Amino acid sequence: MSGVVTFYVTYLLCLLLGIASVVLVAHWNYSYRGGFSWDGSIKHFNWHPVLMVTGMVVLYGNAAVVYRIPLTWGQNKLPWKLLHAGLLLLSFIISVIGLCAVFDYHNTNHIPNLYSLHSWVGICTAALFTAQWLMGFTAFLLPCTPIALRSLVKPGHVWMGGIILVLSIVSTISGINEKLFFALKANTNGTLPYSMLPPEAILANCLGIIIVAFGLVVLKILSNQTWQRPEPGYDEEDFRPLAYDGS
Amino acid sequence: MSGVVTFYVTYLLCLLLGIASVVLVAHWNYSYRGGFSWDGSIKHFNWHPVLMVTGMVVLYGNAAVVYRIPLTWGQNKLPWKLLHAGLLLLSFIISVIGLCAVFDYHNTNHIPNLYSLHSWVGICTAALFTAQWLMGFTAFLLPCTPIALRSLVKPGHVWMGGIILVLSIVSTISGINEKLFFALKANTNGTLPYSMLPPEAILANCLGIIIVAFGLVVLKILSNQTWQRPEPGYDEEDFRPLAYDGS
Repeated sequence: MSGVVTFYVTYLLCLLLGIASVVLVAHWNYSYRGGFSWDGSIKHFNWHPVLMVTGMVVLYGNAAVVYRIPLTWGQNKLPWKLLHAGLLLLSFIISVIGLCAVFDYHNTNHIPNLYSLHSWVGICTAALFTAQWLMGFTAFLLPCTPIALRSLVKPGHVWMGGIILVLSIVSTISGINEKLFFALKANTNGTLPYSMLPPEAILANCLGIIIVAFGLVVLKILSNQTWQRPEPGYDEEDFRPLAYDGS
Repeated sequence: MSGVVTFYVTYLLCLLLGIASVVLVAHWNYSYRGGFSWDGSIKHFNWHPVLMVTGMVVLYGNAAVVYRIPLTWGQNKLPWKLLHAGLLLLSFIISVIGLCAVFDYHNTNHIPNLYSLHSWVGICTAALFTAQWLMGFTAFLLPCTPIALRSLVKPGHVWMGGIILVLSIVSTISGINEKLFFALKANTNGTLPYSMLPPEAILANCLGIIIVAFGLVVLKILSNQTWQRPEPGYDEEDFRPLAYDGS
């Protein structure tokens, strides 16, 4: 029972950190960066951090831990499998719109795409996420997929799940850091420079730390073997990133 | 046997990526950033990326996988324990000198310290690494430490070991990204801007990708249960980040 209580305390922390991340990234871009639009202006770009944090980090992380909620144990697994896949699909769609936001903004303003290390890591993360979702759908949701193929795919699915979250955090932190150096320059737009730590810098730095904490809590939940969904003789879908490897 | 061969292939990849990371970060700072000195100039700063990548990423990662090398199995564990602790101490010392390089450079040039998100994540990583080494030394190397305390400390040691590597990668990638935006500006120092992807940008971006790949290979080695040092009845020191949790 104490394990269940500890899980729910950790899960509550995960939810709170996730909500705080979404609220703070939206507040940062709404209150300090001018808000949102879809017109090629800098307000167009502002969708990028909000949607990537919401999709690639918070929704993704929450989708990953669905199977760990004890409330779902002992029930038919299919609805939770659909929820897992559905949340990840929503996460994927939000992330794609977030990517469109930055590509559209760049193209409208004749700024080259995909030159920074942030963008290189980010686009690799998005590509891996796409491959992961398609592979997961094919292997675990199509009824015609043989059990043998599911078993074959599972170690890679489990491994990649954790790695994509780590890469999302790497991309997000480098992106927030980059944006703050772009936005907070002395004598250019009425703000104090980043190095003077104006309120916006403190807010966005705290956002970054909260995102890192969220990622670590999700990885902690995923890695705890005692929190895995108990399924004697049927464990095709448990999610232990960086832990299980059948190879 | 095939597991051993796969391990050594993966370990060779780990070594090659580690060597490539150190060579590339040194080449970048020597050939493109003016080289090294300890005189408060920008050449003083150049030690920072080289020493952090060498210490906090490559040496740290190699120290973490020492117990996984099958060649060391079946032998007295103490020498390998000393090698593990010694490599991590060397990694720590190199990292501290790398931090001194950036603090000294900032102080000499009246640049504030610890304002960027990169520096916030980085200093948290260094603090966790310090606590981790001290806790590891106390728990696993002092002969007077009771076995019960070792067992108590182990899950935290294992968990923190993997997390510190992840945080090191986050810090490193955000740092390289930040440095490239600082260094590659149009019409200021004779270089093409970062957005035009001059040779230096491609080199440093590739360095970042190689560092990420190195980190993932280390995490892969650590997470593979079949590559753990077999120690029936005595497993106090196995290293499975993000996997084992006795709580």
